Amino acid sequence: MKNNQFARLNADHQMVIEELQRIHFIDDSVQAASTPSAAYRLLLRKAFLNVKGESAFDAKLKNILAAPDINLADYLSSGQPVTRKVFYLVALQLCGFLADIDYDIEDPLAAMEKIQLPYLHARGEWDTDRLLDAWYLLLTTHTKGGQTFLDQLTNQGYFVPFYDLPADRKPLFFNGKAQAVFDTSRLIREVVYVESSVDADQDGMRDLLKVEIIRPEDTNKGLKVPVLYTASPYNQGINDEAGKKATHNVNVPLTEKKPDDVHYEDIAWKGRKCSLPDPRPVAGTTKDTCETFSHEWSYTLNDYFLARGFAVVYSAGIGTRDSDGIQTCGDPQQTEATIDVIEWLSGRRRAFTNRTDNMAIDAWWCSGSVAMTGRSYLGTLATAAAATGVEGLKTIIPEAAISSWYDYYRAGGLTLAPGGFPGEDADVLAIETLSRMKSAADYQLNIKNFFEKQMKQMARDMDRESGNYNTFWDARNYLNNVQKIKCDVLMVHGLNDWNVKPRQAEQLWQKLRHVPVCKKIILHQGQHIYINAFRSIDYTDIVNLWISHELYGISNGVKELLPPVIVQDNVVPETWHAYPDWSEPDLQKSTLYFSPGKLASEPDSHQILSFKDQLPEEVFNRYCAHVDQWSHDILDDQKNPLSENRLLLKSEKMTRDRIIDGKVGVHVRVASNRPFGLLSFQLVDYGEARRLNASPSPIQRLDLGYHWREDRLREFTLARFPTPFKMITKGHINLQNRENTWKVDELKPDQFYDIATELQPTFHKLVTGHRLGLIVYATDFGMTVRGNQPLRYSLALDHSFLTIPFK
Amino acid sequence: MKNNQFARLNADHQMVIEELQRIHFIDDSVQAASTPSAAYRLLLRKAFLNVKGESAFDAKLKNILAAPDINLADYLSSGQPVTRKVFYLVALQLCGFLADIDYDIEDPLAAMEKIQLPYLHARGEWDTDRLLDAWYLLLTTHTKGGQTFLDQLTNQGYFVPFYDLPADRKPLFFNGKAQAVFDTSRLIREVVYVESSVDADQDGMRDLLKVEIIRPEDTNKGLKVPVLYTASPYNQGINDEAGKKATHNVNVPLTEKKPDDVHYEDIAWKGRKCSLPDPRPVAGTTKDTCETFSHEWSYTLNDYFLARGFAVVYSAGIGTRDSDGIQTCGDPQQTEATIDVIEWLSGRRRAFTNRTDNMAIDAWWCSGSVAMTGRSYLGTLATAAAATGVEGLKTIIPEAAISSWYDYYRAGGLTLAPGGFPGEDADVLAIETLSRMKSAADYQLNIKNFFEKQMKQMARDMDRESGNYNTFWDARNYLNNVQKIKCDVLMVHGLNDWNVKPRQAEQLWQKLRHVPVCKKIILHQGQHIYINAFRSIDYTDIVNLWISHELYGISNGVKELLPPVIVQDNVVPETWHAYPDWSEPDLQKSTLYFSPGKLASEPDSHQILSFKDQLPEEVFNRYCAHVDQWSHDILDDQKNPLSENRLLLKSEKMTRDRIIDGKVGVHVRVASNRPFGLLSFQLVDYGEARRLNASPSPIQRLDLGYHWREDRLREFTLARFPTPFKMITKGHINLQNRENTWKVDELKPDQFYDIATELQPTFHKLVTGHRLGLIVYATDFGMTVRGNQPLRYSLALDHSFLTIPFK
Repeated sequence: MKNNQFARLNADHQMVIEELQRIHFIDDSVQAASTPSAAYRLLLRKAFLNVKGESAFDAKLKNILAAPDINLADYLSSGQPVTRKVFYLVALQLCGFLADIDYDIEDPLAAMEKIQLPYLHARGEWDTDRLLDAWYLLLTTHTKGGQTFLDQLTNQGYFVPFYDLPADRKPLFFNGKAQAVFDTSRLIREVVYVESSVDADQDGMRDLLKVEIIRPEDTNKGLKVPVLYTASPYNQGINDEAGKKATHNVNVPLTEKKPDDVHYEDIAWKGRKCSLPDPRPVAGTTKDTCETFSHEWSYTLNDYFLARGFAVVYSAGIGTRDSDGIQTCGDPQQTEATIDVIEWLSGRRRAFTNRTDNMAIDAWWCSGSVAMTGRSYLGTLATAAAATGVEGLKTIIPEAAISSWYDYYRAGGLTLAPGGFPGEDADVLAIETLSRMKSAADYQLNIKNFFEKQMKQMARDMDRESGNYNTFWDARNYLNNVQKIKCDVLMVHGLNDWNVKPRQAEQLWQKLRHVPVCKKIILHQGQHIYINAFRSIDYTDIVNLWISHELYGISNGVKELLPPVIVQDNVVPETWHAYPDWSEPDLQKSTLYFSPGKLASEPDSHQILSFKDQLPEEVFNRYCAHVDQWSHDILDDQKNPLSENRLLLKSEKMTRDRIIDGKVGVHVRVASNRPFGLLSFQLVDYGEARRLNASPSPIQRLDLGYHWREDRLREFTLARFPTPFKMITKGHINLQNRENTWKVDELKPDQFYDIATELQPTFHKLVTGHRLGLIVYATDFGMTVRGNQPLRYSLALDHSFLTIPFK
Repeated sequence: MKNNQFARLNADHQMVIEELQRIHFIDDSVQAASTPSAAYRLLLRKAFLNVKGESAFDAKLKNILAAPDINLADYLSSGQPVTRKVFYLVALQLCGFLADIDYDIEDPLAAMEKIQLPYLHARGEWDTDRLLDAWYLLLTTHTKGGQTFLDQLTNQGYFVPFYDLPADRKPLFFNGKAQAVFDTSRLIREVVYVESSVDADQDGMRDLLKVEIIRPEDTNKGLKVPVLYTASPYNQGINDEAGKKATHNVNVPLTEKKPDDVHYEDIAWKGRKCSLPDPRPVAGTTKDTCETFSHEWSYTLNDYFLARGFAVVYSAGIGTRDSDGIQTCGDPQQTEATIDVIEWLSGRRRAFTNRTDNMAIDAWWCSGSVAMTGRSYLGTLATAAAATGVEGLKTIIPEAAISSWYDYYRAGGLTLAPGGFPGEDADVLAIETLSRMKSAADYQLNIKNFFEKQMKQMARDMDRESGNYNTFWDARNYLNNVQKIKCDVLMVHGLNDWNVKPRQAEQLWQKLRHVPVCKKIILHQGQHIYINAFRSIDYTDIVNLWISHELYGISNGVKELLPPVIVQDNVVPETWHAYPDWSEPDLQKSTLYFSPGKLASEPDSHQILSFKDQLPEEVFNRYCAHVDQWSHDILDDQKNPLSENRLLLKSEKMTRDRIIDGKVGVHVRVASNRPFGLLSFQLVDYGEARRLNASPSPIQRLDLGYHWREDRLREFTLARFPTPFKMITKGHINLQNRENTWKVDELKPDQFYDIATELQPTFHKLVTGHRLGLIVYATDFGMTVRGNQPLRYSLALDHSFLTIPFK
């Protein structure tokens, strides 16, 4: 294990004393202790929560080594001093590390260094002040279980006596972060129906939105709490089967598009004026809801904070079970509905207790401060909400979020599926998430006809045939409104996320440069995953520090403490680096020139190389059924059925480690044998190496509080066996969209055109001895349409090159 | 979805009324209802637990279709009658089934049939009696979420008002099964130290065993509860790294064994007399423990029953953290220690509150009735315990359990690893589970030297070199004591479990024929897995019915209701069959004769076929690294690097579906070119088909109670793509163990010997058009040693044949 903590505050001695008093580690008895060793025993006593009586406590101390030849019970009773070596040998054991495996019992400090655990450097006999400093530091240090030692104690019930603190002494912060002093067995769960500002199902009534609230019982005693709000279109259920049925066939030909002269202004979304029905009359007001729920769809990060003084609010939005409206897949109505919930939370909108009685209810328990959390579509709606500048929204923490839907279902003038979901499109997602379908009567009697009509319209508007950017997509491009963002932004994205691709985060990151808010980004080596259960990074602590500041206004210095960019190393496991920036626009780029089989540092070839796209039917069918096999073969430099369907160019071996930071540019002069065509590119790291597994491996249970919910601690580990290559990034372009994604260019058969495109942004370390490779091909079995047409592409090497942002 | 319920009791009308009253569905208002439709609305009202007030309830009814053109709210208020069609259209919706996907709104009964949901056949307008019968039946019917509708309500809090029932009115049974009327948020967790009857670490003191207890709070008010006891050597932690280090190298040659004349009596375990230290003195007695725990290692099946009136007890036993002794991998001392806990639970042994104060404590809250649960090693210890005949143990529910350790680490005179764990052996498992290692002081100062010495002794005793059955293994063969079993046995095993192989269950099943206890077995298509979260079978209900009878003495007819054998179909998903027996000894066997490339119904060849065992080093290394690839290639009839290293024989195509039920016998006349050798066999189902995936697929969350723990609902689904073959079963034999596993026979090079062995028992449907195949080979890369020696084997076909128990 290697520990990387970014959210640990360094405390001076005064802060140590104050905060140890606050959480009752320092009390009268500790202060009265005659020796540091007596004080140490008292601190330890408080850390063994499961034993009553001195005998049972002593038995636990007897399990712990104080030195290679003596246990801690005997050591303490013999009156020997507290030293650094003793303290950290014990600390390693308290934190779950194993003798002989994680540390050498003769040299605990070597392990502290190796595991990257912080420690107090003071030598000699410690006085009580040193001991308390070290104890404080230990409480903030991550254990083998991937949480702070204080969280480990929390999970054993340390804060149970704090549950009864009066509301005005809650929440409780330690080391800048909110602590679990709220009783999760007494959480209040209730449902309200927010009256939205849209009528997406056009039934002449403002859409009601079901909102699920979970709040600490302390709010009933006067405490006002901020909210973690997760807008998840999935959380009232998903229509798997209906979605599957609606999925488009991708085994269709690529077709010629009629050239045009469209300008962006022609297709820009100008908004839509539609009259909004009157609000419902109010029959009365109440503080009591009349609906609850037993188990919500939940995000474990939110669960963690339910024990720590935050309410959590889930809303699935328009078109979902028990709400009105229809699914629109990211359009402005969905954004409106998303922020309507925030407006209610901050007192500027009405909600009702049920769908019929018109009894209004306020979010009287809410401080009015809201953060939005969640991954994928959930993070997307957080981004959409932030881009309205809505008041009350203090920060968003979008993970793997879409910033522009065009880049999710399209690219470069092509219909391009998210990785793993060929044939999915905006309409499929709308159908999948219209969970009103799960209420048979509501669906069949109220909405089915209208929705089906709308889906036909959406299928036309999204224009799968052309793949062009148009008004439909411009309406779903949150980047258009980034300048309105008023809240701070903490982004998370996977560098290997080919579902929501890295460009989604990078575009937002670039746009945010010019917006006066605080922004941070964490880039991990995962695919489309959450990272709050990772062992090697204190992501949950980072979020705690962030929202303790953003939502409770705690001055914990988080904005200065957190580096702007944190990147997980792609070579060494459990390693995270801090950087000032990602994908800097001004970074100097190196050029590598195309040459037969090579990426050369100087242009050296005037050849024309060509490749075909068609495959024998049997091979084609096999790859359609086994996209994984295709993904392997397209990169494999051994002869295989795809060898003639691509160009494979490789650089010289790297003579030193190089980092590619940002967007690789591809410039090619290309001809197609037909009046249409597409190119795909994959940038590849060639070199035998044990690489990180694609998915993290589970380690053990991760408790989110005391007798509360659990998660699974995970970590990326190295694959057991070396592999010869790994895709770094990829890109695609329709040869008829040479200028931009909305205007169609003519493509004359066999005529050469210069094409420039950027691959998906990345951050990749290419180590000494490895080669950078580029695969040029056409049909991408995982993403593009698969026409299996007799297409042939030719590249003029003397006008083809890569530009690479080597850091 | 297809529903298979074996644990649903048919109720007559009187039982319906009594039990609906017992769980408060029938109350005064229902009884006073003027019409069946009014009564129906009242029943429904009780099933919508999350809403307060009629308006909110009506909103829910509006979501439900009563008929294709009317919702349930309108239907009921219009005073229309309750009919079968209305009731089951509504029932399907209440149970989470989806219109258009799971059922046609015009024909709900067709779906009830197809999904195999029970329903009331009465036509016409129902009176209130019919309605109540149907409601009762619905409560006992499984929903799409894989639990009864009553469990679905339970998870929403239905039984919360029952938490406060007086102790003498608990537990509460419905349809023969215990219900969740116990408040899991108030469970009591405590630790005691049972003084065992062994001194496994030979320190002159009886080993203390840490025992973790979880019991309902009602036990503090006089309720005595039975115990689900899971003995799990893993549950105080596992020494992964130390185990890895101790793992044996399997790339070692097979060697010649010296022929001998050993008889079973020579190696039989005769017991061991060793003097037991005196018991500890008792300083006093108490009812209060002085140690608790925050989160135990847990089995979700046990968790389910914690809400239903059972206590759960975990003990890791000798050699584990906070206990004394050492790990012995299944020896009689471990069995002794395992039943010592039962003796304490039933009042015949002493426990203390901690390790030093000698304060004795009784299991005063326990009724004295114990069941043992758990899978793998856990189920193994249940079997071991039962085979002592210990009083108080009423039943065991061993899943994937070992009945004889020889068959786990050895077979047929060979050292043979459990599938997936090459190089593991008894000593490795002992080291892995010696969790005292995790307490650095206890291990380093108290036990390390002794344990290391013992492990050296174990390595000698288990005799990895010969692979023979000897005294070490005989001491670990629970089959020797099956006749002592006094408790009923409910077994579960995976027909594709190559870790704990099917023989382990079958041997016990055979031995139990002659023991006067009730025995049942469930055979599933999984590997080494639990099945309590499967959707297609009501396993948890089966266990509930079983233990409600065994531990609470409820006369629910479980022994008659449950078929002796339940087998999951290997062809059709979600299909379970009842049979009177498995692997009947008297079943007539068919013979198939060896012929070049064929399994013939008549002997037709006098050829001698031979195959080699050695592989080119590069190929050998590749297969060592990728055992999956080896497992595929050895069966694949396409030419591959193993084609010369095996014989592949195939039958004619089946002209009708055939079931192989039990043990296939292999008889071969074989010669080796060296004075030693081994043969392996795999029986294969050849035929292109979409087969069940090897592992079940997750479906959704599965709640184990109200605001209690969760599991993940799972089900076996068909693979997306067809495969050409699947291994049915396998077997291995050392050619020097032709008579039995303890006596070594001479093997002269190039001389032919007749060998007979039985493959692992199975239950497999071979469908029309498929062929039965047999692979004869030597080195099994996943299980045997891998010497890569220049061995060649020859088979005389005219004396080689299979005997097959076709049902």
